[in-house]
Amino acid sequence: MSEPVGPLDSLRYPRFAGPRTFARLPLLETVERADVAVMGAPFDGGTSFRPGARFGPAAVREASLLLRPYSEPLDLLPFARAQVADAGDAGPDPLEIGAAHATIQARAAELHDSGARVLGLGGDHSVALPLMRAAAARHGPLSLLQLDAHADTWDEYFGHKLSHGTVMRRAVEEGVLDPHASVQIGLRGPLYAASDLEDNAALGFRTLLARELDATGVAGAVGLALERLRSPVYVSVDVDVLDPAFAPGTGTPEPGGLTSRELLAILRGLAPAGLELAGADVVEVSPPYDPTGNTALAAAAAAYDLIGLMVLGQRPRHGST
Amino acid sequence: MSEPVGPLDSLRYPRFAGPRTFARLPLLETVERADVAVMGAPFDGGTSFRPGARFGPAAVREASLLLRPYSEPLDLLPFARAQVADAGDAGPDPLEIGAAHATIQARAAELHDSGARVLGLGGDHSVALPLMRAAAARHGPLSLLQLDAHADTWDEYFGHKLSHGTVMRRAVEEGVLDPHASVQIGLRGPLYAASDLEDNAALGFRTLLARELDATGVAGAVGLALERLRSPVYVSVDVDVLDPAFAPGTGTPEPGGLTSRELLAILRGLAPAGLELAGADVVEVSPPYDPTGNTALAAAAAAYDLIGLMVLGQRPRHGST
Amino acid sequence: MSEPVGPLDSLRYPRFAGPRTFARLPLLETVERADVAVMGAPFDGGTSFRPGARFGPAAVREASLLLRPYSEPLDLLPFARAQVADAGDAGPDPLEIGAAHATIQARAAELHDSGARVLGLGGDHSVALPLMRAAAARHGPLSLLQLDAHADTWDEYFGHKLSHGTVMRRAVEEGVLDPHASVQIGLRGPLYAASDLEDNAALGFRTLLARELDATGVAGAVGLALERLRSPVYVSVDVDVLDPAFAPGTGTPEPGGLTSRELLAILRGLAPAGLELAGADVVEVSPPYDPTGNTALAAAAAAYDLIGLMVLGQRPRHGST
Amino acid sequence: MSEPVGPLDSLRYPRFAGPRTFARLPLLETVERADVAVMGAPFDGGTSFRPGARFGPAAVREASLLLRPYSEPLDLLPFARAQVADAGDAGPDPLEIGAAHATIQARAAELHDSGARVLGLGGDHSVALPLMRAAAARHGPLSLLQLDAHADTWDEYFGHKLSHGTVMRRAVEEGVLDPHASVQIGLRGPLYAASDLEDNAALGFRTLLARELDATGVAGAVGLALERLRSPVYVSVDVDVLDPAFAPGTGTPEPGGLTSRELLAILRGLAPAGLELAGADVVEVSPPYDPTGNTALAAAAAAYDLIGLMVLGQRPRHGST
Amino acid sequence: MSEPVGPLDSLRYPRFAGPRTFARLPLLETVERADVAVMGAPFDGGTSFRPGARFGPAAVREASLLLRPYSEPLDLLPFARAQVADAGDAGPDPLEIGAAHATIQARAAELHDSGARVLGLGGDHSVALPLMRAAAARHGPLSLLQLDAHADTWDEYFGHKLSHGTVMRRAVEEGVLDPHASVQIGLRGPLYAASDLEDNAALGFRTLLARELDATGVAGAVGLALERLRSPVYVSVDVDVLDPAFAPGTGTPEPGGLTSRELLAILRGLAPAGLELAGADVVEVSPPYDPTGNTALAAAAAAYDLIGLMVLGQRPRHGST
Amino acid sequence: MSEPVGPLDSLRYPRFAGPRTFARLPLLETVERADVAVMGAPFDGGTSFRPGARFGPAAVREASLLLRPYSEPLDLLPFARAQVADAGDAGPDPLEIGAAHATIQARAAELHDSGARVLGLGGDHSVALPLMRAAAARHGPLSLLQLDAHADTWDEYFGHKLSHGTVMRRAVEEGVLDPHASVQIGLRGPLYAASDLEDNAALGFRTLLARELDATGVAGAVGLALERLRSPVYVSVDVDVLDPAFAPGTGTPEPGGLTSRELLAILRGLAPAGLELAGADVVEVSPPYDPTGNTALAAAAAAYDLIGLMVLGQRPRHGST
Repeated sequence: MSEPVGPLDSLRYPRFAGPRTFARLPLLETVERADVAVMGAPFDGGTSFRPGARFGPAAVREASLLLRPYSEPLDLLPFARAQVADAGDAGPDPLEIGAAHATIQARAAELHDSGARVLGLGGDHSVALPLMRAAAARHGPLSLLQLDAHADTWDEYFGHKLSHGTVMRRAVEEGVLDPHASVQIGLRGPLYAASDLEDNAALGFRTLLARELDATGVAGAVGLALERLRSPVYVSVDVDVLDPAFAPGTGTPEPGGLTSRELLAILRGLAPAGLELAGADVVEVSPPYDPTGNTALAAAAAAYDLIGLMVLGQRPRHGST
Repeated sequence: MSEPVGPLDSLRYPRFAGPRTFARLPLLETVERADVAVMGAPFDGGTSFRPGARFGPAAVREASLLLRPYSEPLDLLPFARAQVADAGDAGPDPLEIGAAHATIQARAAELHDSGARVLGLGGDHSVALPLMRAAAARHGPLSLLQLDAHADTWDEYFGHKLSHGTVMRRAVEEGVLDPHASVQIGLRGPLYAASDLEDNAALGFRTLLARELDATGVAGAVGLALERLRSPVYVSVDVDVLDPAFAPGTGTPEPGGLTSRELLAILRGLAPAGLELAGADVVEVSPPYDPTGNTALAAAAAAYDLIGLMVLGQRPRHGST
Repeated sequence: MSEPVGPLDSLRYPRFAGPRTFARLPLLETVERADVAVMGAPFDGGTSFRPGARFGPAAVREASLLLRPYSEPLDLLPFARAQVADAGDAGPDPLEIGAAHATIQARAAELHDSGARVLGLGGDHSVALPLMRAAAARHGPLSLLQLDAHADTWDEYFGHKLSHGTVMRRAVEEGVLDPHASVQIGLRGPLYAASDLEDNAALGFRTLLARELDATGVAGAVGLALERLRSPVYVSVDVDVLDPAFAPGTGTPEPGGLTSRELLAILRGLAPAGLELAGADVVEVSPPYDPTGNTALAAAAAAYDLIGLMVLGQRPRHGST
Repeated sequence: MSEPVGPLDSLRYPRFAGPRTFARLPLLETVERADVAVMGAPFDGGTSFRPGARFGPAAVREASLLLRPYSEPLDLLPFARAQVADAGDAGPDPLEIGAAHATIQARAAELHDSGARVLGLGGDHSVALPLMRAAAARHGPLSLLQLDAHADTWDEYFGHKLSHGTVMRRAVEEGVLDPHASVQIGLRGPLYAASDLEDNAALGFRTLLARELDATGVAGAVGLALERLRSPVYVSVDVDVLDPAFAPGTGTPEPGGLTSRELLAILRGLAPAGLELAGADVVEVSPPYDPTGNTALAAAAAAYDLIGLMVLGQRPRHGST
Repeated sequence: MSEPVGPLDSLRYPRFAGPRTFARLPLLETVERADVAVMGAPFDGGTSFRPGARFGPAAVREASLLLRPYSEPLDLLPFARAQVADAGDAGPDPLEIGAAHATIQARAAELHDSGARVLGLGGDHSVALPLMRAAAARHGPLSLLQLDAHADTWDEYFGHKLSHGTVMRRAVEEGVLDPHASVQIGLRGPLYAASDLEDNAALGFRTLLARELDATGVAGAVGLALERLRSPVYVSVDVDVLDPAFAPGTGTPEPGGLTSRELLAILRGLAPAGLELAGADVVEVSPPYDPTGNTALAAAAAAYDLIGLMVLGQRPRHGST
Repeated sequence: MSEPVGPLDSLRYPRFAGPRTFARLPLLETVERADVAVMGAPFDGGTSFRPGARFGPAAVREASLLLRPYSEPLDLLPFARAQVADAGDAGPDPLEIGAAHATIQARAAELHDSGARVLGLGGDHSVALPLMRAAAARHGPLSLLQLDAHADTWDEYFGHKLSHGTVMRRAVEEGVLDPHASVQIGLRGPLYAASDLEDNAALGFRTLLARELDATGVAGAVGLALERLRSPVYVSVDVDVLDPAFAPGTGTPEPGGLTSRELLAILRGLAPAGLELAGADVVEVSPPYDPTGNTALAAAAAAYDLIGLMVLGQRPRHGST
């Protein structure tokens, strides 16, 4: 089997030049098949406060220009071990959430059917629903690691069942994810009622609040995650899990969040367990609120580590390591 | 009848202090009734490119803090001649355009029923539809002056009849506005096809392109407007009629637009004709794309002149002048 | 007694709509009386470097739109347990500090006289003086918790006794606060002389430097605070206590500061002690230097926790919990 | 007499390097005497809305790095024909307007006494008062050309006689300027009352509104100016005379203003008349509201032309041309 | 021959989704050949003041998402009449200007050899040299229309012959362009000496200063251009020809420039003459200085009109019109 | 010997006024000689991604206005114990890296020859090479503490030996620094290959990755540094050692970095060892990417501590302490 096509060589072709694919990787259509497909889900019609995440995939790709091929923490050349490609964007209807989700789900399903694991770039958090549906349709009910300031398990919003704040409840109801094999890390901020967390727990989720991280440390968070997760895993990173200092460009920012060092350490902490990642997403990057580009930068770094985890968790198909 | 309650006195109570009502005017609920009601329509779910106009009403109110009570070009104290009040925002469903429009229309109708003329602050241009419906329900088919870079008369978008690009066609179809008594000024930018303008003309609209303004001057634009308009008039100001230098913070900016001096001169040019304004709107202010606040500032200035026109065009109810 | 009027329901009326009161709470004038009153003190004429804090109250209110009614860390529904209301802004003379302080003090005194605890939103730190005077006039000499990068105990500045850097010395001299029952946390940055800290200690203040927090942790800071504080307490949060990464929009930023997680943990750490809070402030938010809005966001979060502490520390008046 | 010391040579020493003096000119202290002295007046305590102009002189100097030594429209090498130097900043008390003005006036008087004409960089418009006082003390009552959106002839503000909105009335009352030999160009925006302009006219000022410029053109504005002005002239440029598109970074922006091309054409239009400029200022540049730097850039260009006018209007002292 | 492949349909696939090719056109490699090729030249190592133009091509492509297929002023469907494609970026060495120019020239030559006309997106203005060399190699000495604030005909800078300020002199020396058939429009700003313009004229250039446009109007500028130009023409648009209000994001901004309406009217004014455009460029877009994106937006609009002119000026190859 | 001339007194002369020298210190030319000279090296032609660091020295000086004369952590009045002065900027050729380095090296050598220690302000990291060469020429091979996200020990880039990513390898090859007495702290981010770190180690460097800091703490980092360093030391602070939350304005940001509290604590941790600092630099501050100014602020704080270390490490020459 042929060697994976990797990113452009930045020592010969400068980073600021060339197409804005994720990490300067080839477009999927030019490599035929991929082990990991990065797919944009540029939809923000499910957002309750600040919109803008429809420009998230483009911003994350722009920020990903700085990514290089070797992951030191994972001791891995993800783009050499597997074929990683940019599958472009689904083209969701911006005016109707149901239709938008259908387009995203169809595109993700197509990618899963081709044998790829799908890393979705949001978009608001509502896009995690079609992404998880497609992953579960291929891999079975998912064990979820959700890194997020909010549980996203409200029942409805303005009478609607679909929004960025209800997505995880929908996924549980549909059997797409197994809450008992799921963990939420980073929750914080004022809630509507004490019952918000109780209802969330009643659904089956296990939760580590951002403020609890002061006591547990990253190691505690990783420990909790590994205690609950089982393959196939889906990791959903809502960038608002980060403190606004690290990720101002998001729809519903909450002070008191994680540092980017903590977020990356948690993701990398999963590596030794060899879990199989069926899919993942990085969502809620809203470029118009991100004047420094820090949010997209942190999202790109998280996406890179998620790709690493996907590659580590797959059964090897390429001979090289 | 009692004297109108005017804005806070900025020589005693500084402009940066106090509630963010339009022009520091009283809230409608504190004055019982109003001749002119400024009403926010914070909805941007009908937008095809950059969202953010849901924060438009708040930004225009913030920018309106600098407005003072005397309009020199109109030689008018609008807030003394009539009771102008801030009616707050309609609370539109952010997730579904139909429900959102219904909420906006209901609130506007309520205000019209109370005898007020309504100045709507958008929101994307789709909110003009419920605003015009409410105005027409009270005043009959409207004669429209549309200041805009785009005709907004496409038939559909992604299969949907409602969006910020289809609003004027819908209004014609519904009999809400009379295109033969309507004028569009400022259109420009690449189109989908030559038929875009032909279809628009076939609907009955008369159009003055932005580039034609170089030849006609403001006087020509005013002349055209006065030739076509008849009471009751509705004026819809999409801030993208301005060049992006004057209004960068908007959903679909187009270079080659009007200056703020031209826009204001056109509005003021209507004054001598004594037209009755049934309603008006200023839409498409998107604060996350407006780092200088210039867009909101220009929008507030336009809104101020629209209020002046409303006051001039009404039959006097207050004794004072 | 009637139930407190709480914030607008964001599941029915979207957050981006409606008036910009703190946390979408009712205006004081619409509820007659309040247990806690949030009051703006938009004055920045006491600032020595970057101005702009006159727009602080408006920015903090805008940032507070995201606050929800339940505080998980305090296990409290602050807006249900007590009537919290937005008292609007004092209207300080922008041109003369003495007159400005008088206006702020008078308004705060009025609120205290009505039985409310007052949470002031600055404004530069000089506004803490009239706010503390009003609180002390009602509650007696105050025990101060000052979260700040600077001690603010210089004697004068340009020959003036009133400025944002001299406010705490003035308060001690006037007997408004009891330095021996007071703690300053977060001090750092270069000083004029070693005597700055010695003089500060000589006044009676106990100080924990930002860099000492590395050794003590949040627990040490809380321990120190609880060791010194006694009711009635006044908490003054100068947002420059935060590192500029978390709060760039402030008058005199100092690298090496606290994270928002640390600040919030310290505030919440006071809860178990049941201290009575006579008043509090959050000051030095300068919106023109806050392009991401992070500073206002962190300030709003601190203000929310201060309200929680005020509610916890009061003798209950409403039957409900 | 020795040749004037000019700016650093940008073809040898790059523009981004070196000290931030105006136009890279020598500091006054290094050349002993100057024909024209550029002096900062970094005070913004007289401002009623947005502060920040205290950082104006620094921003205008930074923007002036691009200025080159030959003025094509004036056909003049201003820095070769006369010694132009940067006199640094007066160090005004930021806390009290009277003291601040005294410091600015003293420094300007010192420069006038040394034989220099003084170009002041504000600061808010209140600094024009001490600058004009110093110029008039040396040269007699001034003929004023005021380029401004506002007349600045209100009587008081918050009970104070000194502020950025009252400065021109004070100067008339003190005999510092002769309103009958003065012209104001660019006024616009809502006013407090019709009497604002009547009172202004009653003081003796002749006014050309911004909107009247559409009819008169630049030529008409120049004609009016030359009809009224007589030596010694003082030119005061409030950058808010420009439309916010050209100068967003200012304290009280008003839409509908001049373009930078119009402003510069008016200034250059004065050249043929050979008027003697006793002094000038460029004020109200507020860098925190100027994310693009456009305002400072336009201000630097205006300052450059004012220097040209000063040089043209002086009796030659250097032999060279 | 097959129909040209046009841009993605934005009524079905939203503008914020998909790859960032110019105007959403196909990549050249997917259509084999093109009549017009848009090629990035992301190099800014020739800049003397503000860098950043290396990110210009990416920003112009992002801004071009809003372009639609029909040009109303030219009554032309440029993407239907000819195959227009995005040729991606040359990959210039960021560290050495000579090597960078060689890469850009080689890539442009390749495109010219394939029969395409090349529209280059800079990059600083130095990239016009290799672009013109490649065009002249194919089409013979060029007749230049330069829209620019600066003549760019200095001889050297820091002892170097290559920089963004010397490019037009080099092109004349090399016989790449014929100055006697060339026109420069928009020049302004202080110069090093009167000889700058004299030397420029001595080279053969005809010049219309920005300030002269007030007298000639756009018609005069077009008249001058048509008087001088002859096929093959090369049009070089330095975005600093625009006033900073319209194009703040550029390396050496100059107040007093053109409006975007003027720039576009001049370009469109060339259409009736049927000139053959051998090549064109739009340069000096520096995204880090363009917080509103206005500069890239104006550049994209100019590029669109240049494509229109290229299509109009070619001998038809496709049957369709 | 005379007392050192210190900074302007900010209690009398406000911080926003006056020349932009580092920490408001005197220019070197006004004090004849200095123990520590702060020197700008405004060159960014060695950068591979985002340029802009040529404006770094100016931005760091602006940010340094807030520095006061007493360092509490070092218990030192650095500007009283030694003469610290601002030596202005070297004037490097912006177009050719070799020439630029020569200019910087010559200026630094001049300062070293006068007996000063030199603190360089970059500029991109390539300027550390001429700065280190000059220091080593005077003091012998240097022991390096490099605080950086990247090792900067690649061999070449685009075939060039000089760039901001190859500077440390060059310095080793030239014998300018002794890698066996050197430490790199803060490295992180994806690499080109595992060999990047191996090659770096093979050169002799000892490295502490940013992620390892979680385990070692600041104390471990300081311990490692003190274990390796020996006089004369050179400290090179690339601001990208900080997380982008703390330093967004830099050429190649990497998430997962240090906090400013950690950086300052590491620098201060060196104080007790009494090492002699031959030179230091703070580089890669890119103002166009620093909308909050946080990056420059953190750089100024680091520079202040480096001056403190220089003063502590020198043999006393002034009598005062």
